[in-house]
Amino acid sequence: MSNQRMLLTVGAVTMVAGVIIGAIIGHFATSSTSATLPNKNSLTSQESEELELMSQLRRDRWQEGGKEMTRRINDMVSTDNLRDNLKELTRRPHLAGTARDDELAEMVRDRFTEAGFDTADLVPYRVLLSRPNATNPNLISLNSGQNVEWESHYKEKELHQDDYDEDFVHAFNAYSPAGTVTTTPGEGVIYVNYARVEDYEELDKMGVNISGHIVICRYGKIYRGNKIQNSERWGATGVIIFSDPKDVAVEGQTPQEIYPNTWWLPGSGMQRGTTYMGDGDPLTPGWPSTENAYRISKEEADLPKIPCQPIGYDDAKVILEKLEGPAAPSDWIGGIENVAYTLGPEWKPEYSTWTLTLSTHNTENIYRSYNVIGTIKGEVEPDRYIILGNHRDAWGYGASDPSSGTAQMLESARVFGELMKEGWRPRRTIVFCNWGAEEYGLLGSQEWVEEHTNKLQARGVAYVNVDTCASGPIFRGRSSPILWDILEEMTKVVPGTKGQDNLSLHDEWSAYTKWKSGVDSIPLATLGAGSDHAPFAFFAGVPSMDYAFKVDSHKWNISTYPAYHTGYETFYMVDKHIDPGFKIHQGCSRLALHILRYLADSSMLPYSIEQMPKTMAKALKDLKIEGIDSKLINIYDKYVLLEEAVDNFTVEAINFEKSLQDISPNISPVTLRAINDQMMQLEQIFIMPSGLPGRPMTRHAVFAPSQFDTYAAAAFPGISDLLYLIDELSGKDLTKRQNEIRRHISDLTIMTQNARKLLKEMHII
Amino acid sequence: MSNQRMLLTVGAVTMVAGVIIGAIIGHFATSSTSATLPNKNSLTSQESEELELMSQLRRDRWQEGGKEMTRRINDMVSTDNLRDNLKELTRRPHLAGTARDDELAEMVRDRFTEAGFDTADLVPYRVLLSRPNATNPNLISLNSGQNVEWESHYKEKELHQDDYDEDFVHAFNAYSPAGTVTTTPGEGVIYVNYARVEDYEELDKMGVNISGHIVICRYGKIYRGNKIQNSERWGATGVIIFSDPKDVAVEGQTPQEIYPNTWWLPGSGMQRGTTYMGDGDPLTPGWPSTENAYRISKEEADLPKIPCQPIGYDDAKVILEKLEGPAAPSDWIGGIENVAYTLGPEWKPEYSTWTLTLSTHNTENIYRSYNVIGTIKGEVEPDRYIILGNHRDAWGYGASDPSSGTAQMLESARVFGELMKEGWRPRRTIVFCNWGAEEYGLLGSQEWVEEHTNKLQARGVAYVNVDTCASGPIFRGRSSPILWDILEEMTKVVPGTKGQDNLSLHDEWSAYTKWKSGVDSIPLATLGAGSDHAPFAFFAGVPSMDYAFKVDSHKWNISTYPAYHTGYETFYMVDKHIDPGFKIHQGCSRLALHILRYLADSSMLPYSIEQMPKTMAKALKDLKIEGIDSKLINIYDKYVLLEEAVDNFTVEAINFEKSLQDISPNISPVTLRAINDQMMQLEQIFIMPSGLPGRPMTRHAVFAPSQFDTYAAAAFPGISDLLYLIDELSGKDLTKRQNEIRRHISDLTIMTQNARKLLKEMHII
Repeated sequence: MSNQRMLLTVGAVTMVAGVIIGAIIGHFATSSTSATLPNKNSLTSQESEELELMSQLRRDRWQEGGKEMTRRINDMVSTDNLRDNLKELTRRPHLAGTARDDELAEMVRDRFTEAGFDTADLVPYRVLLSRPNATNPNLISLNSGQNVEWESHYKEKELHQDDYDEDFVHAFNAYSPAGTVTTTPGEGVIYVNYARVEDYEELDKMGVNISGHIVICRYGKIYRGNKIQNSERWGATGVIIFSDPKDVAVEGQTPQEIYPNTWWLPGSGMQRGTTYMGDGDPLTPGWPSTENAYRISKEEADLPKIPCQPIGYDDAKVILEKLEGPAAPSDWIGGIENVAYTLGPEWKPEYSTWTLTLSTHNTENIYRSYNVIGTIKGEVEPDRYIILGNHRDAWGYGASDPSSGTAQMLESARVFGELMKEGWRPRRTIVFCNWGAEEYGLLGSQEWVEEHTNKLQARGVAYVNVDTCASGPIFRGRSSPILWDILEEMTKVVPGTKGQDNLSLHDEWSAYTKWKSGVDSIPLATLGAGSDHAPFAFFAGVPSMDYAFKVDSHKWNISTYPAYHTGYETFYMVDKHIDPGFKIHQGCSRLALHILRYLADSSMLPYSIEQMPKTMAKALKDLKIEGIDSKLINIYDKYVLLEEAVDNFTVEAINFEKSLQDISPNISPVTLRAINDQMMQLEQIFIMPSGLPGRPMTRHAVFAPSQFDTYAAAAFPGISDLLYLIDELSGKDLTKRQNEIRRHISDLTIMTQNARKLLKEMHII
Repeated sequence: MSNQRMLLTVGAVTMVAGVIIGAIIGHFATSSTSATLPNKNSLTSQESEELELMSQLRRDRWQEGGKEMTRRINDMVSTDNLRDNLKELTRRPHLAGTARDDELAEMVRDRFTEAGFDTADLVPYRVLLSRPNATNPNLISLNSGQNVEWESHYKEKELHQDDYDEDFVHAFNAYSPAGTVTTTPGEGVIYVNYARVEDYEELDKMGVNISGHIVICRYGKIYRGNKIQNSERWGATGVIIFSDPKDVAVEGQTPQEIYPNTWWLPGSGMQRGTTYMGDGDPLTPGWPSTENAYRISKEEADLPKIPCQPIGYDDAKVILEKLEGPAAPSDWIGGIENVAYTLGPEWKPEYSTWTLTLSTHNTENIYRSYNVIGTIKGEVEPDRYIILGNHRDAWGYGASDPSSGTAQMLESARVFGELMKEGWRPRRTIVFCNWGAEEYGLLGSQEWVEEHTNKLQARGVAYVNVDTCASGPIFRGRSSPILWDILEEMTKVVPGTKGQDNLSLHDEWSAYTKWKSGVDSIPLATLGAGSDHAPFAFFAGVPSMDYAFKVDSHKWNISTYPAYHTGYETFYMVDKHIDPGFKIHQGCSRLALHILRYLADSSMLPYSIEQMPKTMAKALKDLKIEGIDSKLINIYDKYVLLEEAVDNFTVEAINFEKSLQDISPNISPVTLRAINDQMMQLEQIFIMPSGLPGRPMTRHAVFAPSQFDTYAAAAFPGISDLLYLIDELSGKDLTKRQNEIRRHISDLTIMTQNARKLLKEMHII
């Protein structure tokens, strides 16, 4: 029944699309399709049917108009397929650029082909990757003066059949240089908590001098790259990072309380990860690392200068329990049993002759890494792109990160394939991107965006990122403001993942938000960095979205799931503890399918234009609340003109949205396209061609993360970057910084005025 | 008859346009037009009629399809109106930002309004302008030690009633700083010919040391800003620039041989002009100088550091005849009678105690300058812009520069107005731009482009510049390659200006080209800088065109018309000597109208895609001929990949053009728009967001002038810039430069590959 109805409704689309596409640049169309060119009348009646069908899909009419198609899609997404996909993807480790990574790339391509995609290609880039030495592992050792008394571990203990593979990469931090550093006899390391700026400032206050010492810090709170950067800035010679039980084994450290019996991390689990502060291949900053592209030398690349190595909490205990020195602030005390968390660097008396040596042997070389790009050609507007992205490479088995997302992508491709077999075709082109080498610093996606910036700026309607789909039960979504309403809308047509079928995903999301923050409506969340949406949102200015099911950070007060980037992130872990029954994976896939189809099929783009100025206004209000606005007004009294410009932009956006409601369903297709173009250009207004002050690769002036915590979202990042540590400046430096602030506020004001003008009229400039 | 036919053919356009526009964003349309929304069938039949009509206007069918409209336009352009326009525009001097300049701005706006334009606005910017001191004129004086023996003139002698006005600005060079420099006793100035790099290198060879001396040079060959820049680089303390008879009074210097009896320049004629090397307001480099925009300080601005003053050849004679020193190379010898053109700096014995003092009193202040922007709203695609530009400000009466172009613009506006009264409406929006403060460095156009870059990049179809329409009898056109065929095509439907009505303008153009260069076909000429097309072509990447009727440089071997920027550039000069009968003005206006309408009305954009790669290939061939390619291959062997990429781009472009011929007239309007978009995006591929190496304001990587002669056109300017003086580099500097060259060639290769991909397919990236 629903089948029949669906065929009926999409039939018209298909026919008209068939003929329209036939006309597209003759020599690309197959002779058969060009042969089917009808006379203009039949074309027209079909076209208007199509327009009517599509207009039903416009935001406000979605619920009723799209119901059948929605139900059909929800029915088609299979938990069994998702489980099989994940099992195959996680069978062996698939580090970027390895043979297994290439095998999986081919598998993904073949799945796209089987689904009936119009194109499915392996797109190679040659990028700089860092790896440990397979025969000479990175080690931390303790030496009593006579003998080496202890050495750290470089692989996890085998605790379940799923977590042993000889190819599993040894513990390391990518791009951390090879090097050996040793403490001075009698001295150990200094404990610096999370190695945040505020932690180091606290140590300064306490009179602890970091310079010349090796530091040890906990994972968590901020990106590990920032931890190294901060440690370098304070003069550390090396960094040891450990996973603290307080963050990874909250319920206890006995075998019954950890993996494989629970999802909590055992003491030998080590979080791998990159320490690169940039995005994309370090040797081609700003341009694509194609086969023959020019490359800078490794020495010129912006990579960390001091060695760094991750360890588990069992090994951390061996080091920390021997330390003396001042007591750490109470909130610095972690969860390792029988460890006092003193700061060091002194050893306890019995180790007074001991030294600690950190020795890394990582090497960097250029490897080929594949993106897999598959497309479903849009029949009415092939030159408009709705993009779904997820990376493929993992530090190990990557059961959550990223394979839960990849499992979803493969199933979503299959479902679109089924719909196409039944006659459906999207109005716009849908692009599936399976990225390579994301873990090293978004290499695959960044290089691809750098190669295709023009097309993405002119043709990119939206980018949807689903990286780690399933690492916990809690749905979390973030997006460019103009996509936010779409995200919320679509969670309403996805059944909940907690087994109560009468609840929608949106119901579950709201309920959790209410419990967590006590608010009734879900607050709009803008994007941080940390996954492949970053180059789309912050460099190319394509409206983007990123969603996932994550740990209950509110309940556990932890920032990520325990097994993150360790040897215990296994299929067993996901199948047994994180998503038994694969309802979360199912929700991920259903949501992706609905969002893509809504954006691809709506004749008028369902953007929420108003959300952009409203989010800007809220950000300015926050600056007021924090008293930052008066600080800015002192520097540049014309700051008030920015507030005024945002208000005018808001009014214009509201009028624009109203005007869209009045549009006749018989609107000329060219006018419709022109209106869609007008909306697509809005995000581009805020892209600064040369980037934010001092940040050529971050070009979005309003919605991008600040430079000093790349994980966290921020609005007006240029302002926070320029205010950073300004109080420490004086004289010429201060004047220079103040002028940069004046210039930037002036730029923001002009951009905002232009955004308003863009919405005001089409025929004047 | 032709009237009736025209009404018939444009009738359809009008009706359909009327209804389509009615639908454009409801609240902008007047209630009356929205009320006329028809049912979809009538809309459709009209729309297809319109499409059929438009498809007749496609390049290959222009001659037959557009004949009636063409004839009608040719008939309507009136020489009397053009003469009246010029007379009014030149009645008084109208320096940028003066009261008279504002009066004329209002007049232009009112003419647009009277013509029935949809919008006509004064658009102000606040820009830094330089002016001489009205009561304390700039002077060059000779002092014998006892007395001031001589002072230079600062205004032209009155020779005709047209050439006296108390408001006429004194002789000066804009942005040349206030300052007084004096030669050491016994020493005069050094004669440096045209002050080109090659002239100074010649002087170096001759062992002449410039440092610490005032130099005197001739106008001509290169932009005066480059003359100052070169002189600064060689250490000159001041610059005197004179107009040499060999360039401005070729047929003799007796009263019968010069103005007012001929068009040749009298000895008191002084060429004013700017010395600014940048484009746009010096205080807002890269962003629009709106009322409240942030501004850098005058000290931070990139302005000349040494004083500079222009003089006539009578005054130059007084100085040069007293000089001794080595003889100048024979080709440095100009046309001043009884002057030996020795280099100096020594005086002849009888002046051994004398000194020369150059004293300037220019000041820079911020003034308001108006652009006048008028639009005729396109009825099918209001968001596509065809732009006609011409500046309004002049150093004096500006009879040729720019008022001959402004006279043309006013008449062209009137003619479009007449056509609209008869029912015609363009498919796309036509924008008339009357720029302010062009003479100071393209201030009005550059600021406007900086404010509207996004819209121009997304919506700009073409920019047509008609600055100095009539300064001589010889037609000269230059354009972005993809517009070249349009320029040639349209000159074929414009009657010749030499009175033989059986000849077209194209016939005259070809004949002159054949006589000058002996070639049968007119070689494609790309754009140099020097007028308002520069920001469109080189910053925003809008395909641009610049044409004019100029002096017969081949016959006279001079680079510009004699009265250029002097007090003798009067209405009388143009009416009597340059364009008696105003046939040249008429040709200018007819050509502008045909080009604008062809671009505005053709349903498919009549770009010549092939011309772009072919012009690139020719440029690479020239590098080969000059042996530069081997030099580049030595630095970067992957240079050959650029040649390969250009070849592949050429093949793709030819296939693309072929495919356009196969397109059915019943093509879907959305597909048609998509194909036009695809063509529009081609130029954008070559825009480098941060500009060419070291040139943030010049962003076109292929068709832009080189940094070291801003008047001359060049292809691959980044390459010539980076090779400039590379042989003088060594060690680290050389390596750095070589790496910049490698990087740039790599960038060019990637851009060219992307250009090919853009033409290849729409639905994949």
